[in-house]
Amino acid sequence: MKAGLLGFGKTGKAVASVLLQDKNICLEWVLRKSHKLEHRSVPEYLGIESDEPGLIYSIADISISTLLDIQPVDIVIDFASSEAIYNYGEECAKRKVKILSAISHYPDETIQFLKELSKSTVVFWAPNITLGINYLIIAAKYLKKIAPNIDIVIVEEHFKGKKEVSGTAKVIARELDIDEQEIKSIRAGGIIGRHEIICGFPYQTVRLVHESVSREAFGNGAIFVALNLANKEPGFYQFQEILLPYFSW
Amino acid sequence: MKAGLLGFGKTGKAVASVLLQDKNICLEWVLRKSHKLEHRSVPEYLGIESDEPGLIYSIADISISTLLDIQPVDIVIDFASSEAIYNYGEECAKRKVKILSAISHYPDETIQFLKELSKSTVVFWAPNITLGINYLIIAAKYLKKIAPNIDIVIVEEHFKGKKEVSGTAKVIARELDIDEQEIKSIRAGGIIGRHEIICGFPYQTVRLVHESVSREAFGNGAIFVALNLANKEPGFYQFQEILLPYFSW
Amino acid sequence: MKAGLLGFGKTGKAVASVLLQDKNICLEWVLRKSHKLEHRSVPEYLGIESDEPGLIYSIADISISTLLDIQPVDIVIDFASSEAIYNYGEECAKRKVKILSAISHYPDETIQFLKELSKSTVVFWAPNITLGINYLIIAAKYLKKIAPNIDIVIVEEHFKGKKEVSGTAKVIARELDIDEQEIKSIRAGGIIGRHEIICGFPYQTVRLVHESVSREAFGNGAIFVALNLANKEPGFYQFQEILLPYFSW
Amino acid sequence: MKAGLLGFGKTGKAVASVLLQDKNICLEWVLRKSHKLEHRSVPEYLGIESDEPGLIYSIADISISTLLDIQPVDIVIDFASSEAIYNYGEECAKRKVKILSAISHYPDETIQFLKELSKSTVVFWAPNITLGINYLIIAAKYLKKIAPNIDIVIVEEHFKGKKEVSGTAKVIARELDIDEQEIKSIRAGGIIGRHEIICGFPYQTVRLVHESVSREAFGNGAIFVALNLANKEPGFYQFQEILLPYFSW
Repeated sequence: MKAGLLGFGKTGKAVASVLLQDKNICLEWVLRKSHKLEHRSVPEYLGIESDEPGLIYSIADISISTLLDIQPVDIVIDFASSEAIYNYGEECAKRKVKILSAISHYPDETIQFLKELSKSTVVFWAPNITLGINYLIIAAKYLKKIAPNIDIVIVEEHFKGKKEVSGTAKVIARELDIDEQEIKSIRAGGIIGRHEIICGFPYQTVRLVHESVSREAFGNGAIFVALNLANKEPGFYQFQEILLPYFSW
Repeated sequence: MKAGLLGFGKTGKAVASVLLQDKNICLEWVLRKSHKLEHRSVPEYLGIESDEPGLIYSIADISISTLLDIQPVDIVIDFASSEAIYNYGEECAKRKVKILSAISHYPDETIQFLKELSKSTVVFWAPNITLGINYLIIAAKYLKKIAPNIDIVIVEEHFKGKKEVSGTAKVIARELDIDEQEIKSIRAGGIIGRHEIICGFPYQTVRLVHESVSREAFGNGAIFVALNLANKEPGFYQFQEILLPYFSW
Repeated sequence: MKAGLLGFGKTGKAVASVLLQDKNICLEWVLRKSHKLEHRSVPEYLGIESDEPGLIYSIADISISTLLDIQPVDIVIDFASSEAIYNYGEECAKRKVKILSAISHYPDETIQFLKELSKSTVVFWAPNITLGINYLIIAAKYLKKIAPNIDIVIVEEHFKGKKEVSGTAKVIARELDIDEQEIKSIRAGGIIGRHEIICGFPYQTVRLVHESVSREAFGNGAIFVALNLANKEPGFYQFQEILLPYFSW
Repeated sequence: MKAGLLGFGKTGKAVASVLLQDKNICLEWVLRKSHKLEHRSVPEYLGIESDEPGLIYSIADISISTLLDIQPVDIVIDFASSEAIYNYGEECAKRKVKILSAISHYPDETIQFLKELSKSTVVFWAPNITLGINYLIIAAKYLKKIAPNIDIVIVEEHFKGKKEVSGTAKVIARELDIDEQEIKSIRAGGIIGRHEIICGFPYQTVRLVHESVSREAFGNGAIFVALNLANKEPGFYQFQEILLPYFSW
C-alpha cells in the first residue's frame, strides 16, 4: 500500500518514522507547507534505514495533482491542519485515492465536505487516531450497556502548558453520553497524556486507562486504520466502524 | 424471582443483604451448615427493613427436598462450598430449579456433575461472580484480538495473609492465553482486592483495572446473572455467555 | 494506658474494635449520646475476645465527672461531635486527663477553647487521624521544599453520595499552600476514600497516594497518637508535631 | 558554574540540552569516545539557542589535561561509562575540579577509587540521579521508621526489551532493607519507567510512585546536585546527603 503523508511537524515526523518501519505500507512522499527540508528524503533525514522514497515536497512548489501523477499513492494520510483537505480532497476523490484524516477538530462545514468527498472515495476521519483511546471508548460503551447505572468520571492529565480541556476527553464524554462536567482536567509538569475512565459501581470500581508514551502511537493507529480500509467501498468511516468487527466472538 | 441462598459466612451475609435490597429477587431462605442463627430471619438479623422472609435453616435439621416443598424457589444461589452441590443438585435438577454457583474452585469431577445436572435445568457457574472482573476479561480478549502483539501482564494485589496466587488472576491468564509467569502477586496490608491487566503497546499503554470495595459486589453479580438466566433453556452457562449479548451494537 | 471513647457510630465502633485488640491501650468505657446498647460491653457486642471492660454509657444517664470517678482513664478519645468537647473538656483539664480529638471540623471559637484547655492538660486535635494522610502531607511539604516549582494537583475520590469537597483534601491544599481550585473531586460508586497528590516536574511525575481500606484506620491513628502523647507536657498538639521527630536521621 | 560533560549518547544529549537551558550552569564542553560530531557545538547540533560554547571533543584527540587547560571547568559531569573515571579522575582531583558521576553501576574497586579521589576534591555518585527517585527513597525510609510493621512491595515497570531487574528498584529495596523478592518487574510495550513503592497498613495503603517522562530528568537531577555541591568541602557524597538538609522544618 503506497501512502503520502501531509504535515511534517513533530507529530508528522513521528508518524513518518513509524510508516517507514512498517513493511505493509510504503511512504512515497511527504507534502508540507514549509520549504524546510524540501527535496530531502525522510529516511535520510530521520536516520532510518529504508528503501522507501519518502521524498519531502513543499505545497508551494508542487500541486497535489502533479504529485499524484509522478508518485501515485493509494492513500493520503493527513496530519497537517483542518484546512489542508481543501487542497487535496477533490483531487483524491477524483482519482479514488483514499483519504485518512487525523485532524483533531473540523468545523461543521468541513465535515460536510468530507462526507461529500466520500461519495467518490473512502474517507476516514478520527480526531484521535490512537488504537488505545478508540478501543477504550468502545469498551466503556459496552460497560455502560451492561451496567447502565454506574457513575462515570473522566480524568485527563496533560503537561502544564496545555490550555483547554482535552479534545479526546470531550469525545469520550460525548460517546458515553455523560456531562462535560464529569471531565476532570489535571495539568502538571510534563505529563505526555493520560486518560482514565472511572466506572463506579456500588461495591467495585472499574478503571479504563490510556497512557501515551510518545507521538509514534499516532503512526501505529494510522497504519492499523489504513490496512483496515484496504478493501472498503467509498463512504465515510470513523474509528468505531473499523473496530466493531473485532468485537465479536 | 424467588431465591434460596446456600452459605452464610462473611460472603453469604453480604450477598444476602444485597438480595434483600433488590426488588427483582425475593430471598426466601438461607440454608447453612451451622446451627447458628437457626430459625431467625435475615432481615431482622442484619437490621434491613424488608418484607422478604429470608428464614435461616440448618442443613442438619431440614432436607433440601422438604425445604423446596414448604418454600419453593426459582433459583438456588450457592456461596457455600465445593461439596454443597452434592446435597442440593439432584433435587434442584428434578424440580427444574435453576442453579447458580459462585464457588471459586471445583474438582474436575464436580464440573462433570454440574454438566450432568444441566441436562435437566439451568446450571450456571462462575469462579468469580463480580460483574467487573468478568467484563474486564472479555474486554481484554477483544483488545488482544485487535492488537495480537501487545504484551500483557496481570498484577493482582491482596491482603498480606492471602497465601496462594489469586484464582481470578489465573482465570484471566487462561482466558487471555498468557503464561502464569506473567501474573505478579502483591501482598500488602489489608488490600481487599485489586486486579490490573497491563497491555503494553510500543508507544502507549492500556490498563484495565478492577478494584473490590466490599463483598457485596458478589451479591450484585449474582443478581445480574440470575435475572439474565430467567428465560434460559436448561444447559450449562458461564459468565461469558451472559455478557456477550451486551457486546453488540 | 487507660482510655475512654466518645462516640459509638460507625467510626466509633471501628475505633473501639481496634482499641480492644491493641495491648498497649485498655478501653475502659464508651460514652455516647444515644441510649442504645447502654450498659452492654463493647467486647461482647462486637464479638471480640478481650478482658477490657469497654462498658457503654449514655451521656444522658451519667456525668463525665462521675464516670471519671468510678472508671478513671489517662486519655479521652473523641470521635463524637464538634460540641462534645464542651461536655467533657473542663473536667478532663481539671484532672489532667489527656484529650485526643479526631473531630473533622471545629468552629474557630472551639479551637480557642481547646487551646485554653491545653494550658492544663495535653490536648491533641487532628481533623484526619489516619497515619497515612498525615505522613503524606509532611512528605509532600518536603518535596515542595526540595522542588519549589513543581505543579501540585490533589485528586480525591469518594462514593457518589459524598456532597462536599473532601475536608482532608482541603487540609492538604492549605498545608501545601496551593489553591483549592487544584483539588479535583471525583464521586463514583462506592469508593471508600482515595487521595492522590500529583507532583509534576518537567520530565518526571511523583504521585503520593493514600487509599482507605476501612474505618479501622482511624483507630490505628488514634493509638499511634495516644502512645506518642504519653510523656508530653500540657499543651496543644497537632499531628505534625507527633510525626516530625520521626523525620530525622 | 562551568561544567564539562562526559558521554554524548541518548542520555548525554538529553542532559546537555537541559544544561544549556539552565542559566546557573554553563556547558563548556562535551567529551565523548566517538569521533562523531567532533568540533561541532552542542547548541548548534541540538538547535538550542544559547551563548554557551558546548564544544564537542573526542577522547581520542585531546587529553583531559589539555582540555582542562584550555577550557577550565568547576565540575565534570559523567554520563559516560563505569571506566571513564580512570581517564579523568586523577586530573580532576589534582585540580580540585568537582566530580559528579551518574553511572548506574561501579565495581567495588572503582567505588574505592572514587573514595580515594574524594580526599582531594568533591566526589559525588548517584546510580540514579533523578530527584524524584531519590526523594521517594528517603520518604519511604521515614514511613518505615514511623510504621515499622508495614508491608513494602516495589513494582517497577519498563519497556519489554529491558532484560534485568531495574537497578533503581534494587537500590530502593536495599535502602528500605527489604528482600529483592519483593521487587515485582513488569515488562510491557514501551513503558519508559515507573517505580511504585506500595506500603500496606492493615486498614490503609500508601503508594509512592515515580514516573519517568523522558531522559531530560537526569539533566535536572544533575543540575540540582551540582548547585548543592557548590560550597562543599572535599569528600565523598551521595544523594541522601544532598537531600537530607531539606527534610527539616
